[in-house]
Parts: sequence; structure tokens; C-alpha cells
Amino acid sequence: MAYNNLVARVELKNISFGEVASVIAKAGGDIVSIDVISSSGESSVRDITIEVRDIEEERVLDHLKAIPGVKVINVSDRTFLAHLGGKISTKTKIPIKNRDDLSRVYTPGVARVCSAISEDPRKAYSLTIKRNTVAVISDGSAVLGLGNIGPLASAPVMEGKAMLFKQLADVDAFPICLDTQDTEEIIQTIKNIAPIFGGINLEDISSPRCFEIEQRLSEELDIPVFHDDQHGTAVVVVAGLLNALKVVGKKIENVRVVVNGIGAAGVAICKMLINAGVKRLVPVDRDGAIINGGTYPYPMWQWLAEQDQVEKQQGTLRDVIKDADVFIGVSRGGVLSAEDVQKMAEDPIVFAMANPNPEISPEEALEHVRVFATGRSDYPNQINNVLAFPGIYRGALDCRATHINEPMKLAAARAIAAVVTDKELNEHYIIPSIFNEQVVSKVRHAVIQTAILTGVSRRIPKDFR
Amino acid sequence: MAYNNLVARVELKNISFGEVASVIAKAGGDIVSIDVISSSGESSVRDITIEVRDIEEERVLDHLKAIPGVKVINVSDRTFLAHLGGKISTKTKIPIKNRDDLSRVYTPGVARVCSAISEDPRKAYSLTIKRNTVAVISDGSAVLGLGNIGPLASAPVMEGKAMLFKQLADVDAFPICLDTQDTEEIIQTIKNIAPIFGGINLEDISSPRCFEIEQRLSEELDIPVFHDDQHGTAVVVVAGLLNALKVVGKKIENVRVVVNGIGAAGVAICKMLINAGVKRLVPVDRDGAIINGGTYPYPMWQWLAEQDQVEKQQGTLRDVIKDADVFIGVSRGGVLSAEDVQKMAEDPIVFAMANPNPEISPEEALEHVRVFATGRSDYPNQINNVLAFPGIYRGALDCRATHINEPMKLAAARAIAAVVTDKELNEHYIIPSIFNEQVVSKVRHAVIQTAILTGVSRRIPKDFR
Repeated sequence: MAYNNLVARVELKNISFGEVASVIAKAGGDIVSIDVISSSGESSVRDITIEVRDIEEERVLDHLKAIPGVKVINVSDRTFLAHLGGKISTKTKIPIKNRDDLSRVYTPGVARVCSAISEDPRKAYSLTIKRNTVAVISDGSAVLGLGNIGPLASAPVMEGKAMLFKQLADVDAFPICLDTQDTEEIIQTIKNIAPIFGGINLEDISSPRCFEIEQRLSEELDIPVFHDDQHGTAVVVVAGLLNALKVVGKKIENVRVVVNGIGAAGVAICKMLINAGVKRLVPVDRDGAIINGGTYPYPMWQWLAEQDQVEKQQGTLRDVIKDADVFIGVSRGGVLSAEDVQKMAEDPIVFAMANPNPEISPEEALEHVRVFATGRSDYPNQINNVLAFPGIYRGALDCRATHINEPMKLAAARAIAAVVTDKELNEHYIIPSIFNEQVVSKVRHAVIQTAILTGVSRRIPKDFR
Repeated sequence: MAYNNLVARVELKNISFGEVASVIAKAGGDIVSIDVISSSGESSVRDITIEVRDIEEERVLDHLKAIPGVKVINVSDRTFLAHLGGKISTKTKIPIKNRDDLSRVYTPGVARVCSAISEDPRKAYSLTIKRNTVAVISDGSAVLGLGNIGPLASAPVMEGKAMLFKQLADVDAFPICLDTQDTEEIIQTIKNIAPIFGGINLEDISSPRCFEIEQRLSEELDIPVFHDDQHGTAVVVVAGLLNALKVVGKKIENVRVVVNGIGAAGVAICKMLINAGVKRLVPVDRDGAIINGGTYPYPMWQWLAEQDQVEKQQGTLRDVIKDADVFIGVSRGGVLSAEDVQKMAEDPIVFAMANPNPEISPEEALEHVRVFATGRSDYPNQINNVLAFPGIYRGALDCRATHINEPMKLAAARAIAAVVTDKELNEHYIIPSIFNEQVVSKVRHAVIQTAILTGVSRRIPKDFR
């Protein structure tokens, strides 16, 4: 039962507010606040904030509109109000108060700074915004569960991500929404705008194009490129799995893991599970298991078919789920039944992360499952990639990493898992909250340490000297 | 005689600070402040801020380095210090304090906002940063007087511009430095990243590519595209000229104007002068006057040769300057002599805007010229395009203009000129200071009014309803 806050701007003519309030109350709305916008003798304009169950929203508005003397000018809810004019802005770091200031940050003084960078391009990291700036880039082809809604409609997600970057890790992120869905053009465009950025965060780009775009950019640019839908999710899944295995007392090298849904996130999860030590992996898509030795149309599926850790046993999800220790779903709501879960090995671990409806509902799953996680915030154990990208980028920028490699991602996963202490750890708490202040600093630390060890850092931050 | 502030980080070992201070003073430096960075028994590290004449900078440092027991760790000056880490950052408009906030600005709430834009793309203007965001874009091909120094080295100028946009007109501007100098690729890249922006400000792109890039983008995008080096300069030149003509009591339709240097700025100035009513125009480049009826290799020169207002008289600058009422130079230092100026008509107006050295020095010009202006801040009448772009964009964004057309630019020029009242107006004050708070609001008002009249606005701002 979800509640929503509406803000209705109404003009009242020859009617008391008491009468209006009583109609709203009778229809099921709860008045939270009233702001008078303008008022003359007989008429007034007010913003009425009404809390209402989402299913009763329309009824409340219909009743409001039907009152004689009431004109509903417009209706917004708090979510839309929070988006008015966008969610981020720019800020100047120092004020320009006079000619002297101006001549330092702009002509003529700025010329010496330009010349210094021209002579030694590495100086861009100290003398421009590059060292703290990440582009959050989408082509709008796979936005949330909404699909291919295009670049402009993806902007609110990119802005939201930029907010999280800033608030959680003090990274200056800027949204770029691409008006092309052609792989080559996307690669070329991002390469062309790369100089001012210290990193590229790809977002909501559909599979399989996302694989080539990320790989090519990683090869052709000298700044980190990270497709969050793949790796952000994978990092947090592995973090959660490490803790879930602790809860059930199993070792990662002994468990059999079924991953359902082999798109962008599924591939990245499989790859990371192998790196994390999983020896028995069953990737499953609509046509059933992807098996060792098989032949597949997509390069990433083919890559999986060549991994020793991938099992040879053919079958549907229903078949392969038998005796699995772990189920990880990044597919569709309802594909897993209670019966399936009952066939799993003892102490089953189920991560059902389909959005908005998980592969199996908590109600069905909980009595048969030992550890259960979803992508949702209204159940325990939310697998949320907001846990990963802020700290990963904070670390990558601080050590001027050229890449975010697999060991760095795995280190980030272990760092997230380690935020939950052994004492705190239990079935309902395998993953920290995104508001846990330790997350970003621990992830940052692990990422920098691993970047230095694997030779992709170009600077040793002060706290590592 | 220019003074500069240096900050020297020095390590002192077995030496008193007094000895160091005395050496600095003797060499011509003035110690402004001292910060102790670290200090142990016998050694200490300090940042010494020294004011010094620029010509004595090196000597002071050499003396400092020569003191036994002193190690100079590094030297920065205030200009470089102002650039550390770049000059702008991002800011979140609302804090994300808890899950409820998060679900409004990010998933799941943001999905409804995305859907709303997907159904009606115009809503991007109210629900994203588009309505207040401008891209400041350069390919680094013609940066200040430094030439083709590339995208990364152009960043400090673009950031400086973004600062001015924010501080003077509350426009959120973001620097984009393009890693390509191919005309078609620049056009395609800018089109591809355009969705999130409400306007495109092109900057420091070399001629003649800048003409095609701007024209094509203007035709192919539905947001304003403005090459500041062309039009920003032209707007302020025309503003200054309108007031200069008032000072000398001449009418624009009667004067003969010589424009020297027909690159990006020169072409835009000629175009705007014709629109402003000039009937006798002599564009001059290295090979002499561009004449009516002539044939030229560049399309923009050819366009000039087809204008009735352009004179038919051939000749060098030396020839055509005779009897000119106005000289406008956007060329090279020293091309105009005192002798040339003496040949001009009565009450000559000279705008010598070459950077860093004007076409004729103030010392030579002032005794022969009635009104003299330069691009420099150390003489009266600075023709500075910072007077134009903030107000022009504030206006264009507020009325959601599709273009910044010629009438809007001319209206901006008249608005800038009008900031100087008839009472204030004199030879030494034809143009307001960029810190004059009336400039942006007057330019904004004129731009919006003209946008509405010429049918390029998509919204009537509140103060125009």
C-alpha cells in the first residue's frame, strides 16, 4: 500500500477552505500543508499538499474538481516537484569579485595555465576539473525497466546518478545523453568529448552493444570506463554472496551457482563469480542453460561456453536449479516457483533481483530459503549498485587509475561485504545500507590499494604514501 | 609594471627565517604571508607568499635557491593556485537524506518522470537541467592568442567561461573539450551530446571551420548555437560604436568604417555593422580591401563581396584608411601608424582590439584620435565580450529560444550601449564595466523581447506576460 504526496494548485472562488478540506478528507485524502499563493477579495489561489494512497489518487482529484467554486490549476506530486528545473547545478569554486580576480581565472592570466598544460598534458589533472569529474553517459536504450525511451527521457536517471556521485563521494559528475544508438558513433562521440573527464560511467545502454562500447572505450581511452549496469550490479551481488555464504557456512569454491538472465548484468556477474572463485557455474537464459562446449550467437555467451567453471549439463532453469546452492536472478518477475526453490541444496541462497517484481516473491520464497535478497528497498538485503560506483570512482580518481580492472572490482566487493561485521552478520543483514558512511571510504581504500598493486594507478594518494 | 604573487614552498634546515626574509627583500621581493606546513626540531617546511615584479621573479627565486640550508620544494603563483583542481564543480539541488528522498530523485520514483518526458519531450525543459544548462565547447584550435594548443590545454578558458556564465547570469555552463578538429566530426559529436543542453556556446574554434560548424549546428539543432568569438565580440563592438558615434555626433548611416582582419570576429563585425545601418564598409585583410564585385576563396569573404554596403575601392589598409570615420581592428599589433590615423576623417574613432598588443598603441593613437578603445583592461573603453554572452544566454534560455538571430544580437548591442546614460557618456566611457549589474538584466530583457517579436521564442517569461 503506497502513499504519495500530491500538490494541487487550486483557485477558490466564493467558497471556504473548510468545505474543500472536508471533501478531500471524505474522498480519502489527508491534507499535509496549505500555502496561499495569492489572495484577493473573493478568490484565492492555494497549493494544497495531500497525502493519499496511490490507488485513491484519481478519486480524490475527481472529487476536488467537482466542487463548485473550485478550479484545479495543476497537480504535481513531490517526485515531480523534486525534479523541477533538474536536480544538479554548477558552482564556481572561487568568486570573481573584481578585475584582478577576473584576470586570474580568465584572460589574460589563464593563458599561462593553458600554456603549462599544452607543454605537459599531465598538468590537466592538477589545473582543471578533470581530476574530479566523471561523465554519466546513456543513449537511453535500456532505461530502468522502461526500455528504449531515448536520450532526453533518460536524463532524470543520469541526473540522479550525478547527485549520488556528489553526495556520497564528492565526485563531480555530469549527465550526457546521447542522441545516437549506433555503436561506432557512440564510441567516437565519447572519445571526442573525453578530454575534460577523469572517468566515464556508462549507464542504461542495451545489451549486447554495451559490451563492445565499454571494451573499445577501455582500450582506446586512458581514463576508467565503467558500465554500471554490468559491473556495479556484479560488485554488489558478489559482496552480498560472500556474506551470505558466511551465514550458511559454505565456501565459494564448493557451491553450485545458477545465474538466470544472461544480459549485461548477468554476464558481468558470471565473470566476477569466476574471478571470486566459483567453480560450478550454470548461466541460464530463455533457451535454458548456456553450457561448456556449446555454440552461441553472442560473443559474451560464447566466452562463457569456453570457461572451465561453466557446467556441461543441459536443461531448463527448472532442471538445473536442482541441487543448486545459490540462485541469482537478473531476469523477469515470477520465473522461479516455490517448488523450484525446494529442489535446491540445503540452506539455499536466493538473490531475486528482477525489477520491479522479483523472480520469486518474498512471500513464496522466505519459508524455503535461508538467505533471500532482492533489488527492492522494501525488503531486507537490498542489492543496490549505489553501494559500488561512488567508492569505486572516488578511488579510481584519487589514484588516477587508467582502468577499473577485475581485481579492483573484486576488492570493492570484498570491501562492501566487510562493512558488515561478523557480529552483525545474519540472514537479514548481509549487505550494508547505502547510507552507511563506511561504505565509500572502505571501497575507495580497497580500490586504490588494488590499482597500485595491479599497476594501473598514476598517482599515490597521500594516505597511501 | 606588473606585480605577481608567488607562493614558494621551502624547507629550511638550520637557518632562521629572518635570514631568508632578508635575502628575499634584498632581491626585490615583498613577503605577504608565511604558512608553516610542518616543523620538526631542526627543519621546517613553509609556504612563503612573495609579491614581486614579474621581471624580477626569476632573480628572487635564484637568490632564494642559493641560500645554504634552503630547499625550494615548489613554486606556484596565485594564478596557478586559483586553478588547482579546476574552477567549477557540481552541486546537488536537494539533499538525499534517506530512503524516501532517494526513491524520489532516483529509482523507483524517477521512472515516472522519465515516462512523462518520453510521452512529451517538451517536459525535459521543466523536469531536467536542460532549461538552464549551456555547453561551452572548444576544439582547442584557436585558443586566445596561443593558437592550436588542443582540447585539454583549452580547458582553463572553458572553465573560466563557465564561471562567468554562473556568476554573472546564473547559467549552468559545462566545459566540453573536443578531441577532434574535423568539421564533420565536430558537428556530429555536438549533435549527439545536445539533448541535455539548452544551448551551445562555441569557443576558440579556428576560422573558416567555425563558420560552417556554427551554421550547420544552427540549422540542425533546435537550441541556440552561438560562436562567441564571432558574435560576442561583434555585439560589444557595435555597442561601443553606437556610443562612440553619439560622442562625436555622427550618424551610423553616414560613416565610413574600415574593419581590419576578416577572420571569425571580423566577418561577424562586418555582418552586424551592415545590420546596424552602416552604408559604407571597407573590410580589409592581409592582401588589402575585400571589394564589392571581387572574387574570393572563402565563402564569407565572397558573401561580403556581394553586399551593396561594401565599397568598390581597391587598396591596402594604408590606402583605404584615408577619410575613414571609424577603424575597427581585430588583426595584429602595430599594423596602424600615427600617420595612418592622421589621414582619417575628423573626430576619428579607433577600436584597436588585437591581443595582446593593439593595432596601434594608446600612446601613439591618443593624441590623434577622438574615441579610442582596445580589448585590454588597462586602458579605458575595454571591448570585452563578457558584456554580451551572459545576458544573451540568460534571455535565450528564459524564453527557450530556438536560435539567437541577428535582431537579437543587435538588440543586445543596443542594450549594452544603453547602460551608459547620455549624462555619463564621454570619450573615455563608451562601454559599461562587466561588473555593472545592469548589463545582464538589460541584455536579457532586450534579447527576450526581440526573440518573441521575431518568433523564435517557445515560452513567454513571467515578466513579459
